[in-house]
Amino acid sequence: MSDVLASLRHLLPSERVLTEPSDLEHYGRDWTRQYPPAPLAVALPESVEEVQALVRWAVEQNVALVPSGGRTGLSGGAVAMHGEVVVSMQRMHRILDFDPIDRTLTVEAGVITETLQQAAREKGLYYPVDFGSRGSSQIGGNIATNAGGIKVIRYGLTRDWLAGVKVVTGTGEVLECNRGLVKNATGYDLRHLFAGSEGTLGLIVEATMRLTDPPRAPQVMVMAVPDMDSLMQAFAMFRARLPLTAFEFFTDKALAHVLAHGGKRPFDSEAPYYVLVEYETPDEATSEAALAAFEHGAEQGWLIDGVMAQSETQAAELWHLREGITESLASRTPYKNDVSVRVSRVPAFLADMQALFAREYPDFEVVWYGHIGDGNLHISVLRPEAMAMQDFVTECGRVTGMLCEVLQRHGGSISAEHGVGLLKKPYLDTIRTPAEIELMRQMKRVFDPHGILNPGKLFDS
Amino acid sequence: MSDVLASLRHLLPSERVLTEPSDLEHYGRDWTRQYPPAPLAVALPESVEEVQALVRWAVEQNVALVPSGGRTGLSGGAVAMHGEVVVSMQRMHRILDFDPIDRTLTVEAGVITETLQQAAREKGLYYPVDFGSRGSSQIGGNIATNAGGIKVIRYGLTRDWLAGVKVVTGTGEVLECNRGLVKNATGYDLRHLFAGSEGTLGLIVEATMRLTDPPRAPQVMVMAVPDMDSLMQAFAMFRARLPLTAFEFFTDKALAHVLAHGGKRPFDSEAPYYVLVEYETPDEATSEAALAAFEHGAEQGWLIDGVMAQSETQAAELWHLREGITESLASRTPYKNDVSVRVSRVPAFLADMQALFAREYPDFEVVWYGHIGDGNLHISVLRPEAMAMQDFVTECGRVTGMLCEVLQRHGGSISAEHGVGLLKKPYLDTIRTPAEIELMRQMKRVFDPHGILNPGKLFDS
Repeated sequence: MSDVLASLRHLLPSERVLTEPSDLEHYGRDWTRQYPPAPLAVALPESVEEVQALVRWAVEQNVALVPSGGRTGLSGGAVAMHGEVVVSMQRMHRILDFDPIDRTLTVEAGVITETLQQAAREKGLYYPVDFGSRGSSQIGGNIATNAGGIKVIRYGLTRDWLAGVKVVTGTGEVLECNRGLVKNATGYDLRHLFAGSEGTLGLIVEATMRLTDPPRAPQVMVMAVPDMDSLMQAFAMFRARLPLTAFEFFTDKALAHVLAHGGKRPFDSEAPYYVLVEYETPDEATSEAALAAFEHGAEQGWLIDGVMAQSETQAAELWHLREGITESLASRTPYKNDVSVRVSRVPAFLADMQALFAREYPDFEVVWYGHIGDGNLHISVLRPEAMAMQDFVTECGRVTGMLCEVLQRHGGSISAEHGVGLLKKPYLDTIRTPAEIELMRQMKRVFDPHGILNPGKLFDS
Repeated sequence: MSDVLASLRHLLPSERVLTEPSDLEHYGRDWTRQYPPAPLAVALPESVEEVQALVRWAVEQNVALVPSGGRTGLSGGAVAMHGEVVVSMQRMHRILDFDPIDRTLTVEAGVITETLQQAAREKGLYYPVDFGSRGSSQIGGNIATNAGGIKVIRYGLTRDWLAGVKVVTGTGEVLECNRGLVKNATGYDLRHLFAGSEGTLGLIVEATMRLTDPPRAPQVMVMAVPDMDSLMQAFAMFRARLPLTAFEFFTDKALAHVLAHGGKRPFDSEAPYYVLVEYETPDEATSEAALAAFEHGAEQGWLIDGVMAQSETQAAELWHLREGITESLASRTPYKNDVSVRVSRVPAFLADMQALFAREYPDFEVVWYGHIGDGNLHISVLRPEAMAMQDFVTECGRVTGMLCEVLQRHGGSISAEHGVGLLKKPYLDTIRTPAEIELMRQMKRVFDPHGILNPGKLFDS
């Protein structure tokens, strides 16, 4: 056993320092699969003080730390492949406080997203940030990546629900940022700096999250759409007429994969695009408005067919058509892009994107879907079975470079909500200028002067 | 004329470099009145390039710049008292772009808040950040202070509507932060760092602001409340039953000043506290819910009397009871505190605050009011006419130090929405730790290595 490991074992009880190969593999990677995990060890702290001790130890030993939540990330932000110590927050999973007047839950960083949602529901309230990985992702990771998901159109991103965050910096200092206040104009808002910092500025150990009223009688529709222009028209119409909580879309190819994995066809009609619309129906008038909107859309030719959930079971089945896409593709280990443009630029960007893929991916199946109301598209490129993984990734990387050029033309971003991590690092300079990247590097040095916090993620320091 | 001034006059046409004593006084101060203005000159740039040139000139000449919006600030953040050059954005007041699909307005920093609100209305949309100084304050200053105001309970703060911001750093670099995207997970979100940075990290030159749907049939009520507990009960009830857009309160003393300045008494009953409630009434059911809530509150003894606006004119009269407070006190040049606690801590904090003021301000009139739904109280201490201004400010500063101790006990903040500037600088360390302040100092050095941007504001560097 190395001296480094020996000293680590002095910090934590032995059952909370893992070094078995299977643990190193499990904790050393996230949902990206192209980075071979190779951490030195996995540490499982149970308190803020233990996290501080780990940081101070890492500085002393010059060992890098990789903060680790549910590892559901898709950009390699939680990957440890160079002898780092993974700091898993899974033992820090207590709900610390509920305040019914402030309507906040204060939790440790390792609380699972779904646990937080459930805790809110038990109090008659609602934590609205939601996405497919809700059963594994942790709130600390959500903050570190500023997670978005399927309700952004109505409820915004994780940062919008962050009332306070406790962080351990790269010198072992504990910062309590904002402490749950609604208004606090006392200098730079470090809370917002940590949101989306991907573990490079500090280790998130606790958070106070805002809650809201549950949506009133959410209703779900799925509709078939003949073309992209119709989709944008339908979006504008529904947004103007209904209190939307989600507006998601997917292609016929995406639907085919979900149907092949047990999904239920929503109706007989077929179309190149489908939309899932969720909205609140607090009263009769809203239900009527939804029907009238559908009829208007059908008359205009924007909507070919549609179905409205008649039960919670059917609502879940309809949602599965959208949320089941990732799972239906998982066995193919797709190469993923996650891009965004301003909503107004979606049609023009999509036309250019489709032309690019037709030209550059003639033999690959490309499945796309996403959050059209946020201007956010997810693209999954499927590897032909005969092709070697490394060749496939290289080829996709090449086309991603060209996709970045298309995005630049349309003022878009190469990472809408998946973060930069390792996967998007080569493309960061297509959305951030050299001056911005240099400022970010210097900011990292302020918070992490010894360079021990998730080094090599986001940018090379 | 000094060499420095001569070189400044090479940068801009002479009519845009002001040095008349009346101009230096006018542009050298904000709505605080205790700092004698003494800038070297006032520069009125008309373009981003001119702002860059000013910054580069300031670095070369080692002259400090004070960015200047509508100078409606209440903490001295825009005061120039040490030979700085004031950079007024008033000539940069163009509306650059409107996007109906993204629902954004892109504007230069010098656009007046009310102009932005009006431009949104003309497009059938709504810019919801609103406060008494809407007719003078500028959007750049709103961002630099993360302005809040009277609709925070429903719509949040300025940062929540900021889709993108263009900034000139202390080295003359232009940063375009976020570019109007809804989702953009590509590293540290500098946009949120500039919100609330009080001109110490960069000069805000342009911004893209999000708009939303106008509120549906806003209705206003003013009610009399017998005590603080009743007020909190009433707040919880109204929040649960109505789509609140504002929940403001004020004391009998505040009302008396407004009435003495032409305000209209809302009803005959008198009470120690009054609340103004604004909510949307999209349908009959909401109107009924509002009446039922009032009746329930009256039965419980939480509400003594009340009035509901029967016309837009009356709504404006009711709003004037709250918004007219500042103006009604202006001639007394009050010493202001602007504090916040978590909403749940309001009653306990208020009890301690009142005890403190009764003990320490036995001879001063203290008027308070504020945004109870945000946990934010404004406190105006009035100077006895016989007391010299300097003695008064010293005495208020002493008690503010004690108020900070009360705030610390309740986890509160000494600046809820007015910022730190010069006035709150001595108290910054009661809400931010030495470690945080040191990190802020280092961050300032990253963005402003030559220390030319609003030096001495927020903290001493």
